[in-house]
Amino acid sequence: LKNKDKNVFLEYFLELHPTDQVELFQQLYKDKRPMFYEYLTPEQFAEIFQGLEVEEQKEVVKELDKTYAASMFNHMQADDIADFLGEIHEPHAKDILNAMEKEEADEVIELMSYPEESAGALMTKEFISIKATDTASEVMDHLRKKGPEAETVYYLYVVDAKDKLVGVVSLRDLIVAQLNETIENLMSTQVVSVESHTDQEEVARLIKDYDLLAAPVVTSTNELIGIVTVDDVMDVLEEEATEDFDDFTAAKGATDVNITSFSAAKRRSPWIIMLMFFGLITAGVIGTFEETLEEIVILAVFIPLIMDSAGNTGTQSLAVMVRSLATGSFERRGLLHTIKREFGTGLMLGLICAVVLMIVIPFLYPEGGVILAGIVGVSIFLTLSVATIIGAVVPVAINKLKLDPAIASGPFITTVNDILGLLIYFSIATALLDYLPR
Amino acid sequence: LKNKDKNVFLEYFLELHPTDQVELFQQLYKDKRPMFYEYLTPEQFAEIFQGLEVEEQKEVVKELDKTYAASMFNHMQADDIADFLGEIHEPHAKDILNAMEKEEADEVIELMSYPEESAGALMTKEFISIKATDTASEVMDHLRKKGPEAETVYYLYVVDAKDKLVGVVSLRDLIVAQLNETIENLMSTQVVSVESHTDQEEVARLIKDYDLLAAPVVTSTNELIGIVTVDDVMDVLEEEATEDFDDFTAAKGATDVNITSFSAAKRRSPWIIMLMFFGLITAGVIGTFEETLEEIVILAVFIPLIMDSAGNTGTQSLAVMVRSLATGSFERRGLLHTIKREFGTGLMLGLICAVVLMIVIPFLYPEGGVILAGIVGVSIFLTLSVATIIGAVVPVAINKLKLDPAIASGPFITTVNDILGLLIYFSIATALLDYLPR
Repeated sequence: LKNKDKNVFLEYFLELHPTDQVELFQQLYKDKRPMFYEYLTPEQFAEIFQGLEVEEQKEVVKELDKTYAASMFNHMQADDIADFLGEIHEPHAKDILNAMEKEEADEVIELMSYPEESAGALMTKEFISIKATDTASEVMDHLRKKGPEAETVYYLYVVDAKDKLVGVVSLRDLIVAQLNETIENLMSTQVVSVESHTDQEEVARLIKDYDLLAAPVVTSTNELIGIVTVDDVMDVLEEEATEDFDDFTAAKGATDVNITSFSAAKRRSPWIIMLMFFGLITAGVIGTFEETLEEIVILAVFIPLIMDSAGNTGTQSLAVMVRSLATGSFERRGLLHTIKREFGTGLMLGLICAVVLMIVIPFLYPEGGVILAGIVGVSIFLTLSVATIIGAVVPVAINKLKLDPAIASGPFITTVNDILGLLIYFSIATALLDYLPR
Repeated sequence: LKNKDKNVFLEYFLELHPTDQVELFQQLYKDKRPMFYEYLTPEQFAEIFQGLEVEEQKEVVKELDKTYAASMFNHMQADDIADFLGEIHEPHAKDILNAMEKEEADEVIELMSYPEESAGALMTKEFISIKATDTASEVMDHLRKKGPEAETVYYLYVVDAKDKLVGVVSLRDLIVAQLNETIENLMSTQVVSVESHTDQEEVARLIKDYDLLAAPVVTSTNELIGIVTVDDVMDVLEEEATEDFDDFTAAKGATDVNITSFSAAKRRSPWIIMLMFFGLITAGVIGTFEETLEEIVILAVFIPLIMDSAGNTGTQSLAVMVRSLATGSFERRGLLHTIKREFGTGLMLGLICAVVLMIVIPFLYPEGGVILAGIVGVSIFLTLSVATIIGAVVPVAINKLKLDPAIASGPFITTVNDILGLLIYFSIATALLDYLPR
């Protein structure tokens, strides 16, 4: 690239896999980029553009010549264009659509009309549909012509005269079949399909569970309108795992490493401040027991222990439930079974911790006597039992009530459990105050 | 199933997708299962068996007649058998291998010889390899014969006389090609392949990034020995996300909902107890400042606030790093950039929280005066700055030093940050003790 020998560069570069082309482009300094726009045809550059992240795409579009950009968009796949246009300002998006060929632009507009994170928004319209009356050899001929354009040729969807989905034939079955066999005899009529408004996570789960390479997307009247392919679904699985993680840590979109310190702080601070106010509530709980504390200062020493243990067990239960909800592993055993299981685990963990503490504390803090150890032990037992229930029930409730999943995040659950744990601890300590040595 | 009409059942059941067959089988009460073994041929039942989880497979094998089981294993895919045998007792595994056909058993033994979670352990040997000198029509004939057995027919791997991988042809390219074209002219020589010892997470990432349906597995001398398909990889992505989650919450394998309360408690208790001992260290920190506390009891009230804020910001930073490491999104920007970013975010979050607290505390706790608010504010600022660094640096260090990732879990980071936060807080308070109103 440095010696600017165009032909050598092109020969080498176009041999690369598109994914590697994208990576090379991303690693370049900005001032080298115009060379790409000059050397590559809009069609060749479209491949790279599709692989960039939205923020990079925005930058690149600004650098592109208008005619070049229009031609590039005409060579991109409709679903990738829709994704990009959904992220930029509306007037700008309209300009781009107007510059595109009408047929292609209409497809993009259709895709953009589906709700975010739905099967409709995820799907591509470049699929191959065939008729049940076709023969295997006719379909093969059709494939030879249409194959290069389609997103996948490995599943061929069979539609009737009204474009309704009636079956599916895999290319594998087609290859193995006799040439004069009709599709009707080859196709499977048990087609796993999704509706356009189906959530992308459900689509991903379906494709994963049934080991599919693609799933057809249909309207409510079973008309075939697109397909979702396995590679899109892999991105969804990763996105959803990141989302779960964000929710879990209340980091809300801040796990994106491509943003600045300032925007990360802006996104995270509402949560941190909100949680800090929860901390003030916890402070209030301790404040209520100030008199007890004044009498026996050593009680303050165990505040972190109660808080940590409550937080940790609650978070574990939460993790179990969040993952189970995400992977759908409930369906077989039932929710109640899992919640009961968690409660049982909580009782056992509480018991073990209580026993350990009642043995250790008299050695570490002999001034507190057996009573202090007893108070801490019983508090831990009750706290852990409650904490597992909170950790298990809250995410399920959130899921059922369709509330913001961030309420089921680690920090929230931990704060609730902190408050309950300290209430239990100080209530018991206050009740037994007269028995404590001072 | 209830009226035991075998033919009606079989007709209906065998029409179902294997995934649905498995689900139906799983939902049945145990006493109904023998009916399946009676009605279905070993080959038909093999499909169901492959879809079960290991624990269920173990139960089922116990219920099966020996001849039936042997026949079933002969009809299963080698990689599924290897997965199952790897989980049961060795003598029992040997019995099963001895009862199987030799060729199939050898394949299983080979697969079992690769390290866990490697490409070798994940791959299947049912792939299709062709020669560069074959013509398109010869390959199509070959596919018609071998197609039904192979795991995928959509990528055809081209090998030389020594079985070395030299290229790949997609079925799509083959279909579009002229019948007398040789594979040499059709194939791509830029094959993305993995070695047998490559970690499964890397294989998954490769298949995902390059939008592949399968990746060839080769020896160090580039000999083709198997393929990993996209459906196996989707399971890996999910497994790894769950692993990250487990590590993050120190729940270590306890997110599995199919275990009993007792085994969940057994798996989780070491962590909870270890973390409880960390809690005792935190208690020790407070204990060191007992005299300060005795003078100004109200200081105890802010212990939870300091702990929660330190924990929450640290956990957010940790989440950013864990996800970035998992998705490889560092590669472009560099690690140091992200750590600096986190530190910047920490300073800003600390500043905001400090300002809020210094305004709010004088109203809530007027008895502490401005000095108390100042102590808490400055402590929060310092604590949050430190907490983000700890949260960002620890997982990276763990990754570099190849330590147990559980050290980078939320609870550990939180505990470390708690201790640092309380040290900062009580040190400042002790230094300013004389200026505090009492």
